[in-house]
Amino acid sequence: MSLLVVGTVAFDQIETPFGKTDKILGGAATFIGIAASKLEVNSGLVSVIGSDFPQEYIDLMESHKLDLSGIKKIDEGKTFFWSGRYKNDMNTRETLVTELNVLENFEPQVPENWKNPEVLMLGNLHPSIQKSVLNQLETRPKLVILDTMNFWMDQTWDELMDVIKEIDILAINDEEARQMSKEYSLVKAAKKILSMGPKTLIIKKGEHGALLFNQNNVFFAPALPLEDVFDPTGAGDTFAGGFAGYLAKTKNYSFENMKRAIIYGSALASFTVEKFGVERISELSQKDLAHRLEVFKTLTNFDIELD
Amino acid sequence: MSLLVVGTVAFDQIETPFGKTDKILGGAATFIGIAASKLEVNSGLVSVIGSDFPQEYIDLMESHKLDLSGIKKIDEGKTFFWSGRYKNDMNTRETLVTELNVLENFEPQVPENWKNPEVLMLGNLHPSIQKSVLNQLETRPKLVILDTMNFWMDQTWDELMDVIKEIDILAINDEEARQMSKEYSLVKAAKKILSMGPKTLIIKKGEHGALLFNQNNVFFAPALPLEDVFDPTGAGDTFAGGFAGYLAKTKNYSFENMKRAIIYGSALASFTVEKFGVERISELSQKDLAHRLEVFKTLTNFDIELD
Repeated sequence: MSLLVVGTVAFDQIETPFGKTDKILGGAATFIGIAASKLEVNSGLVSVIGSDFPQEYIDLMESHKLDLSGIKKIDEGKTFFWSGRYKNDMNTRETLVTELNVLENFEPQVPENWKNPEVLMLGNLHPSIQKSVLNQLETRPKLVILDTMNFWMDQTWDELMDVIKEIDILAINDEEARQMSKEYSLVKAAKKILSMGPKTLIIKKGEHGALLFNQNNVFFAPALPLEDVFDPTGAGDTFAGGFAGYLAKTKNYSFENMKRAIIYGSALASFTVEKFGVERISELSQKDLAHRLEVFKTLTNFDIELD
Repeated sequence: MSLLVVGTVAFDQIETPFGKTDKILGGAATFIGIAASKLEVNSGLVSVIGSDFPQEYIDLMESHKLDLSGIKKIDEGKTFFWSGRYKNDMNTRETLVTELNVLENFEPQVPENWKNPEVLMLGNLHPSIQKSVLNQLETRPKLVILDTMNFWMDQTWDELMDVIKEIDILAINDEEARQMSKEYSLVKAAKKILSMGPKTLIIKKGEHGALLFNQNNVFFAPALPLEDVFDPTGAGDTFAGGFAGYLAKTKNYSFENMKRAIIYGSALASFTVEKFGVERISELSQKDLAHRLEVFKTLTNFDIELD
């Protein structure tokens, strides 16, 4: 049982300068699980859906070998729904609709056979829900990664601080890191946040890449410069799924290996933005991924010999 | 005669959240020349100053082996003066004063012994001034690099297009690249700009690093994540000076070597922002630079073996 993922499974409706979708498959856990599946990692999802969730999406997720036994189906409920519109620059988005639906009373239940995962990925949810999942496990995972957002910093700071003490890696974006630390400089922000509990911090900067910090080291991974960003939805979750998946697969939690994991995450995320929703990432071949990793090497590697 | 630099020599007065300076030494040519001197490159400067330019600054520039014979001193004139204030985030700045003074009627004159430079760096000036320098040379340099800005795109588009056809490398920032190409995506912007004449394009993204493009390749160099950016003034010019200087020194104009040059430029620029004006970069030792280059390697290099 290698990667346990707790997070949303959702319907997304997305508008970009390139077009508009109907309600399509979305949700953090969905993107994380599918991304990890591309690294041949066995993932279990803990989430909740309504009776409106179509068999077609269940089939798609199961075709990626995701174990859905931890996803509760509420017969009288509707699936979490998010709708948003991206501006022309694709960097800012406006939320049009958020219907929590079955997510409102979500009480995660970890299936018996998933109580000893190698890696635990706690997707962006109420910190008490994240904590409850940790508490349900029989053994402490080798690695616990947590995502959160501004909303929980504003509304549930104490609960957030409480769960953050128990994790290994916090993965947030630059704006969130600044809010959390009250520091503008990301280097200063990282120092402060690392003193709050996590041993490692990932700061996601969207099109500007990602930074990985621990007490003594810093690593920078660029995002791939793309001709068109078609739909950024799910890019951050794909990145997290690739990162967590690579570590769950290799079982090596050194900083050097986390660098590799970040590059895998970045490479996978660069596919997600090429089409709407999970379309591009779900059809991705091993050959596509290997080629993209090669592109990342070319993009950043240089040889300067120093004495 | 390896690197000829045409650009401003100026007084800057700078206000940041960390403090305020009197009139201090500034100007693009100053930063470019000093940066190149750190790579032991022999630079000649073409510029103009007024009678108010102090001997102390002349001495400082000459101590970096800059050949100032191409700097004209106008006895009845005052040196170009710029004053600006940086906001708290250090990313946006407000110009408080711009006094062109002797720059208003600047007619660059390339000294006889500088008419065959290996590399020519055309700093951000009126495109006709940039062109006039190119026309004064006896042999075409191995490499011509040009910097420009929004103002010249707005005011002197035709003259800019005219000089851009004759250069090798254009170095501008992301905002300028978007304005010049009318494309938001930097990849699309790069394609369009490369069709306007330059064989290579550098897009400077400030704290987000820099991109290097030619017809078939792209390379990304991060900026060093810093605890404090004390004063960003001159960082872009230091970067350009390090880039041009490295190429003038190594005389290898391949894309692979330009990657190294970008890293040297980024490393040098990371010092400039640590203090006001040229203070940090001018006192820089070879050991400091070698150490910083090592930090850049650690920051970006990863090893992923692919078949």
